[in-house]
Amino acid sequence: MPRYALLLEYDGSAFHGWQRQPNGASVQQSLEEAAAKLNGGVVPVSVAAGRTDAGVHGLGQVAEVEVSTDLRPDKMRLALNFHMLPAPVVVRAAAYAPEGWSPRFSALRRAYRYRILNRPARPALDAGRVWHLPFALDEKAMHRAAQALLGRHDFSAFRAAACQAKSPLRTLDRLDVFRVGEEVHIEAEARSFLHHQVRNLVGTLAPVGLGRRPESWPREVLDGQDRRKAGETAPPDGLCFMRVDYPEALDWH
Amino acid sequence: MPRYALLLEYDGSAFHGWQRQPNGASVQQSLEEAAAKLNGGVVPVSVAAGRTDAGVHGLGQVAEVEVSTDLRPDKMRLALNFHMLPAPVVVRAAAYAPEGWSPRFSALRRAYRYRILNRPARPALDAGRVWHLPFALDEKAMHRAAQALLGRHDFSAFRAAACQAKSPLRTLDRLDVFRVGEEVHIEAEARSFLHHQVRNLVGTLAPVGLGRRPESWPREVLDGQDRRKAGETAPPDGLCFMRVDYPEALDWH
Repeated sequence: MPRYALLLEYDGSAFHGWQRQPNGASVQQSLEEAAAKLNGGVVPVSVAAGRTDAGVHGLGQVAEVEVSTDLRPDKMRLALNFHMLPAPVVVRAAAYAPEGWSPRFSALRRAYRYRILNRPARPALDAGRVWHLPFALDEKAMHRAAQALLGRHDFSAFRAAACQAKSPLRTLDRLDVFRVGEEVHIEAEARSFLHHQVRNLVGTLAPVGLGRRPESWPREVLDGQDRRKAGETAPPDGLCFMRVDYPEALDWH
Repeated sequence: MPRYALLLEYDGSAFHGWQRQPNGASVQQSLEEAAAKLNGGVVPVSVAAGRTDAGVHGLGQVAEVEVSTDLRPDKMRLALNFHMLPAPVVVRAAAYAPEGWSPRFSALRRAYRYRILNRPARPALDAGRVWHLPFALDEKAMHRAAQALLGRHDFSAFRAAACQAKSPLRTLDRLDVFRVGEEVHIEAEARSFLHHQVRNLVGTLAPVGLGRRPESWPREVLDGQDRRKAGETAPPDGLCFMRVDYPEALDWH
């Protein structure tokens, strides 16, 4: 049976996250039910590079699915997109999955972007896609504070209570904060992240940007390894899963 | 009674356009009903720089409203935004309207942006915000064709049948076509536009980008002054009213 790698885009505000839920739509369910139409009606299991939370968007999520119908990847993309209508999720590109490749375990690097709308007025056109902070942020102070968090650390202070990872050790490769017009963007890259890690990092950098905490504070929070000492978890709206890198080049169609 | 200039942002997919309709929500109605709370319950009339169609978005629409409550512009912004909740429209900034100023008649220049999503897969995260054209566009050919439309012309070929303007003469100052990743953007600037003019220009440039018409065709359509010879009207989803320029600087808050 052919196994496909799928590059996915979705509007997270329409889903209760990637993972199947007893109640409520999930990206995984949309994909698996579409794939069932190409698998003799049997619902296959799809694994994703990252199990994004409810409200978190995807522009470059990667998943795999194995079905009994052997279609060229471009035809598989068209067929899945047809069957997923009208849910706001699409296969941007599909490829045959290489032997031994896993979207989750083969990933070398994951990249997330967090958007803060930093102006007095709430969002209208981008409601659900940004975190609204009406008071002026010093994004340069946030960036400097973020640089002290790079490298291999115990990220217990930025880890959700529900996190299922065996170890709180992670290597944060990039955490850039910069302004784009009325928005402040935070871009994070690592081989893997703990549950809520990016949202907790953003929620801890925000008080620095607002001048309520010194630039040294996020590093102190990290060293304290105590979740209760960190900032609040930033809302899911602003977060988007942008990209996954693998050692092998996938032949996307 | 104080008169205010308002800089508005809205998600056009939630409205039947700027203008009040017997049935269906409009931006004008949202704004006027919020303003009535600051006008002793009497609904004032608001005039806008451009009466955007159903589905067309606003990032820099400008309108005026006169109310009996005299609030500083920043307080007026907050009050209107509170009363417009939860409609996806906000006052980005407010200013006291200068004597003799009109959002519509004082405008020196209006700027629109049209977004085409140019990739095989339909939009998910930007559904309702882009026109999806799955086949590869040659945006450089579109740009060259667009340059032949600049200047003062009779734009009857690009004018909606319902257009109420007295004259079909308009001066097109800018019509730039360029690629931004998977998207092709068309940016148009003029003192004023005819009804559907931008969408008809985009619909006439698209066949050039797809290689179905020569680069000389849009100019031939212009010279023919016959709406039936032009391309189809591009859908409203991709269009956004970006900016209005006035001779006087408004003191936005």
